[in-house]
Amino acid sequence: MATKKIINKGDDAVDEMLDGILDAHADTVMRLDSNKRSIVSRNGPRKGKVGLVIGGGSGHEPSFLGFVGKGLADAAAIGNVFASPPPDPIIECTKAVDGGAGVLYMYGNYAGDVMNFDMAAEMVAMDDIEVRTVLSTDDIASAPLNEKHKRRGVAGNFFIFKAAGAACDKMLSLDECERIARKANDRTYTVGVALSPCSLPQTRKWNFEMGDDEMEIGMGIHGEPGMSREPLQTADDITDRIIDKIFGEMAPAKGDRVAVLVNSLGSTPLMELYIMNRRVHQRLRERGVEVHKTWVGTYCSSLEMAGASITLMHLDDELTGMIDHPCDCAMFSVK
Amino acid sequence: MATKKIINKGDDAVDEMLDGILDAHADTVMRLDSNKRSIVSRNGPRKGKVGLVIGGGSGHEPSFLGFVGKGLADAAAIGNVFASPPPDPIIECTKAVDGGAGVLYMYGNYAGDVMNFDMAAEMVAMDDIEVRTVLSTDDIASAPLNEKHKRRGVAGNFFIFKAAGAACDKMLSLDECERIARKANDRTYTVGVALSPCSLPQTRKWNFEMGDDEMEIGMGIHGEPGMSREPLQTADDITDRIIDKIFGEMAPAKGDRVAVLVNSLGSTPLMELYIMNRRVHQRLRERGVEVHKTWVGTYCSSLEMAGASITLMHLDDELTGMIDHPCDCAMFSVK
Repeated sequence: MATKKIINKGDDAVDEMLDGILDAHADTVMRLDSNKRSIVSRNGPRKGKVGLVIGGGSGHEPSFLGFVGKGLADAAAIGNVFASPPPDPIIECTKAVDGGAGVLYMYGNYAGDVMNFDMAAEMVAMDDIEVRTVLSTDDIASAPLNEKHKRRGVAGNFFIFKAAGAACDKMLSLDECERIARKANDRTYTVGVALSPCSLPQTRKWNFEMGDDEMEIGMGIHGEPGMSREPLQTADDITDRIIDKIFGEMAPAKGDRVAVLVNSLGSTPLMELYIMNRRVHQRLRERGVEVHKTWVGTYCSSLEMAGASITLMHLDDELTGMIDHPCDCAMFSVK
Repeated sequence: MATKKIINKGDDAVDEMLDGILDAHADTVMRLDSNKRSIVSRNGPRKGKVGLVIGGGSGHEPSFLGFVGKGLADAAAIGNVFASPPPDPIIECTKAVDGGAGVLYMYGNYAGDVMNFDMAAEMVAMDDIEVRTVLSTDDIASAPLNEKHKRRGVAGNFFIFKAAGAACDKMLSLDECERIARKANDRTYTVGVALSPCSLPQTRKWNFEMGDDEMEIGMGIHGEPGMSREPLQTADDITDRIIDKIFGEMAPAKGDRVAVLVNSLGSTPLMELYIMNRRVHQRLRERGVEVHKTWVGTYCSSLEMAGASITLMHLDDELTGMIDHPCDCAMFSVK
C-alpha cells in the first residue's frame, strides 16, 4: 500500500522543500549560489569566529536546517531523504562560514555522514581551513556503554549543537569550542520509542512492519532496530522505561540540573508529548533533580513516524550558559 | 482497530497534558486554583488593559493554550477533546484577567463554544465585567459566502487572536480591540485538506473513514464534511485548489500584502508543508502580492490527522502592526 503524502514528484521533494524554506525564512537563511544544498545563516558567520557546520539527511526536519541562525549553526549541508549530504555542499558551507578561526563539523554518527564530512575536511584543508569534528552519539539504545563511539546521534543533537553554537557565537577559540562540544555530547542522553514506520517520498512504502498493538523502545530515526519490540504500554510506563535507561548512565545526584527535551518523531501530537513530559518531571522531582528548562515539540523527526524520544542534558554551569545563550534560527529561537 | 497513542487512561489525557504543560512552561503560564481548566498568562493581564480570553476543545494543540502569554491571549479555557469548555473555566479566566477595561472573548464559531462562552458572559456581567465576543469564521469551506456567519473558525484563529492580542497589549479601548478583532477575522481566509482521520483518546477509534488514495478538500478540524472527496493530488494541485478558493474571496490586488500560515493538521511533516509553502509563494508572486511574513508548522491540529491548511490574512497597515507586535507565549513568540 502506498502511503499518502502532499508532494509532487518524490525525487523533487527535498529541493522543493528547500525552495519553500527559503521563501519563508529569507530573513534568516540563504542558499549558496555555489551549491543549492548549502543553507547558510545570514547573520551568524563573521571574521574571527569559529564556524559551525552541521548537516545530515533530509526527513528529520526541523533538523538540521531549522537550527541554522545567529547563535547556533552557521550552515547546514542538506542530504537526500535519510542520506548523507555528499562532500560538495559541505565544502561550500565550510568556505562560506570560515572566519579564519577554524570550523567545527558536528553531525550524528552515521557511516555515510562520517565519510562525506571527512572528505570535505580534507578538501578544505588545502584552502588552509582547519576543521575539527565532533560526532553526536546521544542515542543510548544504539550501542552498549563500552562501545559509546558506535552510538548514533538523534534528538540530543539539538542540545549538543546548541551548546557548541553558543560557544562559537561567544567567539571562543577552536580548542574551546571543540572541548565544549565534546562535553555537551558526553552529557546528553536520548532514548526513543517508535509506534509506527514512516515512508520515503520516492517509494511511499513503509520502511518496516509493526503490529497494530506494538511499539519498539530504542528504535533509531531511520528505523534502525531498537532494544525490544513489545506490546504498547501506557505513557507512564514508556516514560519510566526511558528515564530508567537514562538515569542508569547519567546517574544524576540530588541537586543536579538538567535540560529536558521531549521530541515527536513525526505524527505523535503535542498532547502525548506533554503527557510524557509530566512523567519526566515527576521522576526528576522524585530524584531531587532540578529542571533548568524544558522543550516539547518536534526537533528531530523521521518524516511521519509515530513515536517520541526523551533527551536529558546533564548540565553544569558552563553548559547552562550555553543552553541559555540567545539564538535566532529559522525554526527555533532563544531570547 | 484501535489506534496507538502514548497516553495513560483516555479520560485523564487532557488533565495530564495540562500537568505536563505547566511543568514545561511555568515561567509563562499558570493554572488557576479556582479551576484547573483555566490557564492564565503570568505577565499579560494588568490594570487598564482589555483582557483577552480564548478557548475551545483540546486536541488542537498548540491551540489554544499555546497562545497564552504577554502580547497575545491572557487566558485560555480548556475543554475536553473536541468539546467546548463549560462556563466555569471561562468565568474564572475572565475574572482573573479583568483589568477594569472589559474583556474580549474570542473563539471559533462552534455551537457548544457559543453557548458556553455566552453563558459565562452573562454570569460575569453580574460582577460588572463587560464582555464583547468576536467569533472567528475563517474556514471558507464550512459555509457559502452569503452565510459567512455560519462559518467555523480554524487555523486562521492564530492570526485573528494575534491581532486582537496585540490591540489589547497596546492598551487600546474595548471598542478598538473589538473593531480590530472583527477586521482581523473579516480579512482572514483558510482552507484545509485532510488525508486521514484521527482518533480520540477515549475511544481510540478513527473518527471517519477515508480510502487509501483519497483526500478531502475543506474538511473541518473535527472531521466535519468538506467540499469534495477525491483522489489524492499533487502538492501543487492541492495548493492551487486552496489558493484559488482563497483568492476568489480575498481578491488581492497587485501590491497588496498578506501574512501566510501553512499549518499541519497533525501528522503531515514540515517537508510537505514547505513544499506547499513554495507553491503558495509562487502563486502570490505571480499575482504581484507581497508576503509580509510566513509561518509554517503546527498551529491548529486535529490530534494525529494527516493533512494541512493554508491561511492568508489580507493585511493593511494596522493589521501589519498587530501581526508584528511582540508576544511571548508558551508555544509561540514574536520578538
